[in-house]
Amino acid sequence: MTRNRWTVGIDFGATVIKLGLVAPGGRVARFLTLPSGTLSQPSVFIERVSRVVEELAESVGERASRLQGVGIGVPGTVDSRRGTVRSAVNIPGWYNMRLGPRLQRRLGCPCRVDNDANLVALGEWRFGAGREARQLVCLTLGTGVGGALIMDGALYRGANGSAGELGHLVVDPRGPRCGCGARGCLEAFVGTAGILRLGRRAVRQGAPRLAELVERAHGRMTPKVISKAARMGDTSARRVWVEVGRWLGIGLASLVNLLNPDRVVIGGGVANAWRLFHPTLIKTMRTYAMASPARRVRIVRAQLGNSAGIVGAVLLWGEGAVARGLSSGANE
Amino acid sequence: MTRNRWTVGIDFGATVIKLGLVAPGGRVARFLTLPSGTLSQPSVFIERVSRVVEELAESVGERASRLQGVGIGVPGTVDSRRGTVRSAVNIPGWYNMRLGPRLQRRLGCPCRVDNDANLVALGEWRFGAGREARQLVCLTLGTGVGGALIMDGALYRGANGSAGELGHLVVDPRGPRCGCGARGCLEAFVGTAGILRLGRRAVRQGAPRLAELVERAHGRMTPKVISKAARMGDTSARRVWVEVGRWLGIGLASLVNLLNPDRVVIGGGVANAWRLFHPTLIKTMRTYAMASPARRVRIVRAQLGNSAGIVGAVLLWGEGAVARGLSSGANE
Repeated sequence: MTRNRWTVGIDFGATVIKLGLVAPGGRVARFLTLPSGTLSQPSVFIERVSRVVEELAESVGERASRLQGVGIGVPGTVDSRRGTVRSAVNIPGWYNMRLGPRLQRRLGCPCRVDNDANLVALGEWRFGAGREARQLVCLTLGTGVGGALIMDGALYRGANGSAGELGHLVVDPRGPRCGCGARGCLEAFVGTAGILRLGRRAVRQGAPRLAELVERAHGRMTPKVISKAARMGDTSARRVWVEVGRWLGIGLASLVNLLNPDRVVIGGGVANAWRLFHPTLIKTMRTYAMASPARRVRIVRAQLGNSAGIVGAVLLWGEGAVARGLSSGANE
Repeated sequence: MTRNRWTVGIDFGATVIKLGLVAPGGRVARFLTLPSGTLSQPSVFIERVSRVVEELAESVGERASRLQGVGIGVPGTVDSRRGTVRSAVNIPGWYNMRLGPRLQRRLGCPCRVDNDANLVALGEWRFGAGREARQLVCLTLGTGVGGALIMDGALYRGANGSAGELGHLVVDPRGPRCGCGARGCLEAFVGTAGILRLGRRAVRQGAPRLAELVERAHGRMTPKVISKAARMGDTSARRVWVEVGRWLGIGLASLVNLLNPDRVVIGGGVANAWRLFHPTLIKTMRTYAMASPARRVRIVRAQLGNSAGIVGAVLLWGEGAVARGLSSGANE
C-alpha cells in the first residue's frame, strides 16, 4: 500500500496525552491534547486515541490507514520490537500491554511504541538542540528525571530496553531515598520531590520571599515558585538552584567520563530554571570530569519543548529506523 | 599483497610490554615480554618492538610484512583512526606520537593502535568471558581502574576516544582525592592506592594477621597481602574487601541503570580477590540498581588473564573492524 508522508506522534504524559500530526521534516501540522486520567484503561485508550488519529489524518484529507505510521511514547519499560508496554509508571494496569499490535489492528497503519524519553531524544537529536551530534545524552528534568542515549548515531536501548535511566545514577550512596527504592540517585536530589525538599529547608532556614510566594499560592511549593523567589533575589531560594546545579554537575561528570559525549541536551519543565542552575552545573562538571572529555562536550538546553516526543516519532520510520534495526529486525 | 593469517598483539604495560603471535581464532602461538622501562623513547620502542615482531613472524616461517597486522594497546588516550597516541599514562614523552604510521612504515604491514582497555574488552568479548554478549561492560582492576564498553555489538569509543573511563564514575562526591584531580571517583576507592589506604586503616584498627604479613614482607602492603590475611581469617582484612565490594557494587549499579548491559566482565590483578569482594558487590549492586536491568545483567570474572589485550588485537582486522568503522573509515 502506498503510504502518505504523515506521521502521528503521541506522548502519554502523567496529566495529558499529546497528539500531533507531523510532516517528515519534523513540522507539527496539527496538535491536540487529551486528559490522561480517564484513558488509562487499555481498550478505552485505544478506541479514543484511534478516533483522534483518524481526525488528524482527515484534517489534511488523508486516511489513517495510509499514514506513514503512529509512534507512541510511554513513560515506562517498553519492548520496542514487539510494541509491548511491559510496565508504565503512573498508568495502572499496563503490564505486558500489546499496545503497538492492538493499535495497528484498529488503525491499519504501522504503530510503534517506545519509551517516552527515547522519543524526546530522537526529536531533539534530529530536529532540535542535538542536531549533528553523534554521541548525545538527553536528560529530562521533571517529576522524574529521565534520559536517553544516542550513541554512534543510533538510539541505544540496552539489553532489555531500559538503558538511559540517567535519573538513577547513584550520586551519593548516603543520600535521600529515591522513588526507585535505592538511595542517593540523581532523581532523589533533582527530581521535583528533591527540589521541593530543598525548598522547604530554605523556608525553614529563612527565605522570606519564598515563604511569601508559597503562602500566596495557598501553601503550595513548586519548582516554579522557587525559581520566582530566586529571581526576586531570595538568597535561600537561589541556593536551592545552586544545589540542584551541583548535583546535576556531579551526575554529568560521571556521564562525561563514561560516555565521552559530543553534547548533552537538558529539557523538561524544571529546565526552565536553566539560568539559575546552569553556571553551577558547568563549574561542578568541570571539577569532577576529566579534562579531555569535559572540554569536548557541549551542554545545551532542549529546543523543542513539549513537542520533542511527538516529532521524535517521525524517526521510528524510514532511514533512521533502519539504522536502529527496528524495521529490518536486525536486533533480533 | 596476500596477507597471512597471523596477527601480532602488543600490550604496553607499566612494567612489561607483552607481545604475542595470535591465530585468527584467538590462540596465542608465541608469547614474550620486554621490560617497559628502557623502551619509552619512541624510536627505541619502534626499533626494538619491530625486531621482536619480525622474530615472531619468522618463528612460524612468515615475513612480518605479510602479517594480517600488528595491534598495540597503550595505556592512555589514543586516536585510533590515525594511530596516534595523544598522551599515555606512565610513558613520558608520548604526546601526539604517531605510533601506528611509524611502525607500519618500519614493518610494512598494517599497524593499529588502541587504548589498552579497549583491546582487553575486545579480547574478552570475542574469546573470553564476554562471548555472545551484545552489551558488555569490561572493568579492569589494578593500579588504575580502567574499562571499556561494547554496545550494540561494537566497541564504543565516544566523541574523541576517551569513553569507558569506569574508574572515574563519581561514587561519593565527598570521597578521597583521585589521581585524576577529582574527588570520590571509583578508582579512589578500589584502585590499588585506595585498597592500600583501607589496608593501613585495618592495621591501625587492629588486624594482627595482616600486620604480621606486612612485616614479613619488609613493611610492604599490597592487595595480595591483604587477600592472604583475609583468607587466613583476619576480620579487619576481610572488611577491606567487603568495602571494596561495596564501592564496586555502587559503581556498577549506576552502570546497570544507565547502560542496561547483558554482562559485566571484571578482570585485572585485583580481581584475584574475587571471592572476597564478589558477594558484597552483587548484594550492593542489587540494592542500588533498578530491578529489571539488575536481574538481566550477569557479572562474571575475566577469563583470559594477561593475554586478553593481545588476543583482542585480532579484532582490529577483518569483519569486526568493519563493524566498528575502522577499516572503512565510516567513523570519519
